[in-house]
Amino acid sequence: MKRLKSTPKHDGFRMPGEFEKHAGTYIIWPQRPDNWRNGAKPAQKVFAEVANVIAKYEPITILVNQDQYINARNMVGPKVRVVEMSNNDSWVRDSGPSFVVNDKGTVRAVDWGFNAYGGLIEGIYYPWDFDDQLGGKIAELEAVDSYDAGDFILEGGSIHVDGEGTAMVTAECLLAPDRNPHLTKDQIEKKLKDYLNVEKVLWVPRGVYGDIDTNGHIDNMCNFVKPGEVVLAWTDNQDDPQYERSIEAYNYLSKETDAKGRKLVIHKLSCPSPIVITKEESEGVDSVDGTLPRMEGDRMAGSYVNYYTGNGFVALPVFGDPNDKKAIRLLKKLYPGRKIETVYAREILLGGGNIHCITQQVPKGNGK
Amino acid sequence: MKRLKSTPKHDGFRMPGEFEKHAGTYIIWPQRPDNWRNGAKPAQKVFAEVANVIAKYEPITILVNQDQYINARNMVGPKVRVVEMSNNDSWVRDSGPSFVVNDKGTVRAVDWGFNAYGGLIEGIYYPWDFDDQLGGKIAELEAVDSYDAGDFILEGGSIHVDGEGTAMVTAECLLAPDRNPHLTKDQIEKKLKDYLNVEKVLWVPRGVYGDIDTNGHIDNMCNFVKPGEVVLAWTDNQDDPQYERSIEAYNYLSKETDAKGRKLVIHKLSCPSPIVITKEESEGVDSVDGTLPRMEGDRMAGSYVNYYTGNGFVALPVFGDPNDKKAIRLLKKLYPGRKIETVYAREILLGGGNIHCITQQVPKGNGK
Repeated sequence: MKRLKSTPKHDGFRMPGEFEKHAGTYIIWPQRPDNWRNGAKPAQKVFAEVANVIAKYEPITILVNQDQYINARNMVGPKVRVVEMSNNDSWVRDSGPSFVVNDKGTVRAVDWGFNAYGGLIEGIYYPWDFDDQLGGKIAELEAVDSYDAGDFILEGGSIHVDGEGTAMVTAECLLAPDRNPHLTKDQIEKKLKDYLNVEKVLWVPRGVYGDIDTNGHIDNMCNFVKPGEVVLAWTDNQDDPQYERSIEAYNYLSKETDAKGRKLVIHKLSCPSPIVITKEESEGVDSVDGTLPRMEGDRMAGSYVNYYTGNGFVALPVFGDPNDKKAIRLLKKLYPGRKIETVYAREILLGGGNIHCITQQVPKGNGK
Repeated sequence: MKRLKSTPKHDGFRMPGEFEKHAGTYIIWPQRPDNWRNGAKPAQKVFAEVANVIAKYEPITILVNQDQYINARNMVGPKVRVVEMSNNDSWVRDSGPSFVVNDKGTVRAVDWGFNAYGGLIEGIYYPWDFDDQLGGKIAELEAVDSYDAGDFILEGGSIHVDGEGTAMVTAECLLAPDRNPHLTKDQIEKKLKDYLNVEKVLWVPRGVYGDIDTNGHIDNMCNFVKPGEVVLAWTDNQDDPQYERSIEAYNYLSKETDAKGRKLVIHKLSCPSPIVITKEESEGVDSVDGTLPRMEGDRMAGSYVNYYTGNGFVALPVFGDPNDKKAIRLLKKLYPGRKIETVYAREILLGGGNIHCITQQVPKGNGK
């Protein structure tokens, strides 16, 4: 397949909204014992559950290292396709490509630079060489050409698009000094406009409190339900450090308009009560130099916003929290045409993300 | 994807002739320095050439180990898809699956057992664990279900089918004591009938002289041009040990009929002059315990029959031999609708096979 040095904007390709029709979904099998407790066995069960849920609605592929191939094949259902691909960790939203389409239905990939959320400064694992190759490799697997974004570092979870010219990011992440310190904010915005083919970038100041793995990815904080309409991670508890972050984002978004000049409708999606790592959970994680440790008492960035939108469904993480029901109720209202599928996802959160972080959609092109 | 315990015969699936329409082709990237001289660099150039030739006519995928991925991607043309898949050597004809189809155009794979041409008795490399997994893995990559042939050892190069009920094998290979010693000839024939869905098996006594790697695979000796018509590796030189093998096969095939009761039309395809390994070529191969050595003066099993038939083309190995022209002329006559594409293939022969051995077709099903 071809490596393209031009840009999607130049060639008339755009990144569709996640809520648009998919050709399928990718997931990467979790395995590293210095991030996933108890040899990743509890996480593997939950990833398999997520895969089986998605398989009910659209084609899904799980990518897996050679040494876990047979185990993964045996743990997921027969509708799931299992394909070998070397990886360092299982965040395909961030290490994988973003896909773009044109009006003729041709699909291409954007292969971003990846440095494990901060490289040698604040990266959360080392090395990340296999993960940096995933963008190009998944493009080949899909048999599509890919745009080479060169050394521009970007995780897919740090952007959302409405498919109609608007992208949304957090300044906390995109301006972090361990991503693209050689670029100004304007230069970064230009890159987003070129590679996502958007006219406007909304810069939410910060992500969810406690999201130190990713420096506050937007995909845990705010998501487009459809053009002109977002959900925002919320709390009414003024004693919670999340409060000022939610208020700040609400105020910012309330005053902004999108690329089409629309005011945004903002739906508040209340977070679960603070979730902290237990002693037992912490002790299940191997200590490895260069990997972010998971310590007892650390607060994880629990948020319902980290859901995945697919063909006819939403895969929503739940936590056994009283707010689970509220989240389900709100999403049922916001997604009338889709089944709300819940997965008890504490294990994914313990690893540093949630359902949106572990999935990557391929938009539907012609003939797919 | 599903693992099926039934058989293609039971489910109404058959293996099509190679000359029927393809969805695409697989190749595995060569790399092991104990088989491919000079760090496999000369072989990689030839494999890339074969891939680029095939890419002109149908989709092609090269499977490659992680550590050679970037090198392979850079060495082949942009029309070739490069996908990571762990392997021990590059004979996808033999280690990969055979594909079967039904009348509705559904494609499935047959995942044979593989023991590197003889396991711990006479296998030509060790270990072969990755190669034994290729059948199931390539089926997943194709997103098709696969028949699990269990511990029945079979290399794809040891069979040819006419797509109309006839299979052709050599007794030299299929009855070798290092393949399925626990099965009688009748039991082996039953397996072939069940998994290829054929009614008749033609047992050519022996393969090409010098083909000790494979114990005389049929695909170097005899091939179906179409139902009722074969080409046979030939020599008129009575001093050549190949002579008695060609005569023996000719006599056998002359007296046989195929599954439809047809007498076979046999075309003699004269072999190149004997090809032996030079001192320099031998010295380029690493010595490794457990791998068949490539010694100076060894005669390689050179044969034009080891060609690959694809959509609108035949990929024919040539050797810089006077018989090259005769082979091209005959195949042009036999394949009037196809372009005869030649590749100088001494490097593949030095590794123990040729173009047919390094390719595996996926038949065209519905929607492909």
